[in-house]
Amino acid sequence: MRLSRYFLPILKETPKEAEIVSHRLMLRAGMIRQESAGIYAWLPLGLRVLQKICAIVREEQNRAGAIELLMPTLQSADLWRESGRYDDYGKEMLRIRDRHERDILYGPTNEEMITEIFRASVRSYKDLPLNLYHIQWKFRDEVRPRFGVMRSREFLMKDAYSFDLDQAGARHSYNKMITAYLRTFKRLGLTAIPMMADTGPIGGDLSHEFIILASTGESEVFCHKDYLGFETPPETIDFDDPAAMQAVFDKWTSLYAATSEKHDAAAFAALPEEARVSARGIEVGHIFYFGTKYSAPMKAVVNGPDGKETAVHMGSYGIGPSRLAAALIEANHDEAGPIWPDAVAPFRVGLINLKVGDAACDGASARIHRALEAAGVDVLYDDRDERPGAKFAAMDLVGAPHQVIVGPKSLAEGKVELKIRRSGERELLGVEAAIDRLGGKA
Amino acid sequence: MRLSRYFLPILKETPKEAEIVSHRLMLRAGMIRQESAGIYAWLPLGLRVLQKICAIVREEQNRAGAIELLMPTLQSADLWRESGRYDDYGKEMLRIRDRHERDILYGPTNEEMITEIFRASVRSYKDLPLNLYHIQWKFRDEVRPRFGVMRSREFLMKDAYSFDLDQAGARHSYNKMITAYLRTFKRLGLTAIPMMADTGPIGGDLSHEFIILASTGESEVFCHKDYLGFETPPETIDFDDPAAMQAVFDKWTSLYAATSEKHDAAAFAALPEEARVSARGIEVGHIFYFGTKYSAPMKAVVNGPDGKETAVHMGSYGIGPSRLAAALIEANHDEAGPIWPDAVAPFRVGLINLKVGDAACDGASARIHRALEAAGVDVLYDDRDERPGAKFAAMDLVGAPHQVIVGPKSLAEGKVELKIRRSGERELLGVEAAIDRLGGKA
Repeated sequence: MRLSRYFLPILKETPKEAEIVSHRLMLRAGMIRQESAGIYAWLPLGLRVLQKICAIVREEQNRAGAIELLMPTLQSADLWRESGRYDDYGKEMLRIRDRHERDILYGPTNEEMITEIFRASVRSYKDLPLNLYHIQWKFRDEVRPRFGVMRSREFLMKDAYSFDLDQAGARHSYNKMITAYLRTFKRLGLTAIPMMADTGPIGGDLSHEFIILASTGESEVFCHKDYLGFETPPETIDFDDPAAMQAVFDKWTSLYAATSEKHDAAAFAALPEEARVSARGIEVGHIFYFGTKYSAPMKAVVNGPDGKETAVHMGSYGIGPSRLAAALIEANHDEAGPIWPDAVAPFRVGLINLKVGDAACDGASARIHRALEAAGVDVLYDDRDERPGAKFAAMDLVGAPHQVIVGPKSLAEGKVELKIRRSGERELLGVEAAIDRLGGKA
Repeated sequence: MRLSRYFLPILKETPKEAEIVSHRLMLRAGMIRQESAGIYAWLPLGLRVLQKICAIVREEQNRAGAIELLMPTLQSADLWRESGRYDDYGKEMLRIRDRHERDILYGPTNEEMITEIFRASVRSYKDLPLNLYHIQWKFRDEVRPRFGVMRSREFLMKDAYSFDLDQAGARHSYNKMITAYLRTFKRLGLTAIPMMADTGPIGGDLSHEFIILASTGESEVFCHKDYLGFETPPETIDFDDPAAMQAVFDKWTSLYAATSEKHDAAAFAALPEEARVSARGIEVGHIFYFGTKYSAPMKAVVNGPDGKETAVHMGSYGIGPSRLAAALIEANHDEAGPIWPDAVAPFRVGLINLKVGDAACDGASARIHRALEAAGVDVLYDDRDERPGAKFAAMDLVGAPHQVIVGPKSLAEGKVELKIRRSGERELLGVEAAIDRLGGKA
């Protein structure tokens, strides 16, 4: 992508309203723009990150056997009256009346709707287990939205819902999602720890929040230090093996870890002092087992092996990709901008032509640009007629993890400069060697 | 994907409420499910088609130089007051009040919001031309939603918005989108003809609807027969060449073509009788040039080469992927189900094991399944313990364009049967030859 043809509205000033670093950097880099309180447009740079996050989330959900569908944003109020949550949910739910005076709402979550879809078509325990997920925009009318997309009103959520015949099956489903989540966050370059958590308006008796540690985190969390070194389950793990899944659960819940709501000061104090981690955390996922809380009132039943009707055991599993984009910046940035892991970088390579109009610089830059794009490498080519300083600053703000700098001096010796965004390391290389290093096609 | 692990809630009965064939087949095949009047969930099979349509739309928008972003579903009413459309739009607009009693709305289209984004960041004619698009759910509160996702209330739309310094530039942008649309519909296996159309609530003085001919079409259309044989612009066409783009426009508007609102009976009657096509049509795209209708009142201005501020010339360009899923079925089906073009088939290959439990059938089926999945071929493997008749019917209803039938008789001779869904042609082939034919990995 040539920057001269891209839409990258970088801000020169730091926006005053932004209280945390991810919000500041997302606004400054032209990733997002606020359209109303807590409602954001994802500008091209931000959308690229969001789409890459979603792709990883989707791959790991599919690997765990979950099946994607897509439920609408608007829901009938009657559905929520069946579960009793229409009255319970309070002012966070955006209630709407359509032109025929029917009560509808902008879904804050989808337990009721997925239960309705399930009960309409599944009759037998033979069709279980089943895990259905979607990635869809949700709305929660926060009193005081803030921190940009970290706590917005319209936000993107991946929510999965599992259906099993009994509690043992539901535990296996729960463990599969824990495994999928550990893998997902690891691929995003994050260390997320499952912590005992409150269930809130979703309900149920078993729940974990996945927390990443970051000094700007919204809440206080407490955990055993060893979690930080635990190995993530490998790609080859067998999700169909209940024992393997239970082993993941057992390992990742073997040591102390709790959010402040569930914190047990005495248990924490019993840990050796050097093992105690008390830090700020950001919630990036939340999973629930709630048994028959929705299936019983809504009559989502199957015929069991004994021929009797049984309400299915359910769980739900949420990840917020829009919030993750901000959390990734909280965990990876410096003064100059975000430092994206390769897997979610909006552009993996930033190519800077220091002297636009110079035949040698233009030629070498065009050669590198073409070779990388031909190989499917995301590259942002700064071909603008700007000062070098402005170009360096813009590329650091974009956060391309690998930068190629084409300038007349080095090029006279046949070289271009490679810079690693995270470490600042620089290296001079020949044009073809640089292309090769970055995965380009000769 | 093994069907025994998939979620494919096929209906045995034909739903009474469905008046047109696409609606009937989408319900029967478990592609969609109505959640409220005109509001649908996309079940896994339907979502696969929707995602493939979006991928092609996206590729062709990008090829034409449009840049993807993502605007939110909810918009501030104040934005629509600036253009004057808040009062004009009528009851089709879903008006909402949030917890702080602020007026918001569920976007039926995004001219105002994109104009706001543009004016906040673009200052100079040097940043033009610009074309920004998104693929997002919209809502129009139709009095009488019907025909399934063909005329639903919550629907998916790709809407692009172009910004140019003057009318000549805007015409080039308009022509680029005509070219992109012709290519998009062709890749979807459709023949879509641009027809002079009314501008409705979007406004402006130049507008074309892209219409496909189908006996179940909602409106009457009139055109010259030669359009049906016109060649689509090739992948290699230069979108930056105004003359090449104008030539596409000229060719595709050279002959008579109009929707009933714009129909000129005398002009049509003047065509040779054998050239007159009067048929039913389905609108699958709609494009508009509306000059400064939004930029002038909303002050979206740039500094021109003369240093003076000028309101930019704009156009907007819509395609409805959710409606297209239904339109594709209207254009491609038989009594047994949809007949998907390869490019948008939910599964390109359907694999039927006629004797589950038979070691030879199970082994050959597993071999084919693995080899196709390893090569990235979408394959649905019917591994259920069902009668052959039920399996054939289910696979035709899914609409997999290529079917592989593994039965004990043919397999005794080392053969499996290949069936082409569209023609019904059948052929016996060895297992490895079948894998090879379908693009599998040995």
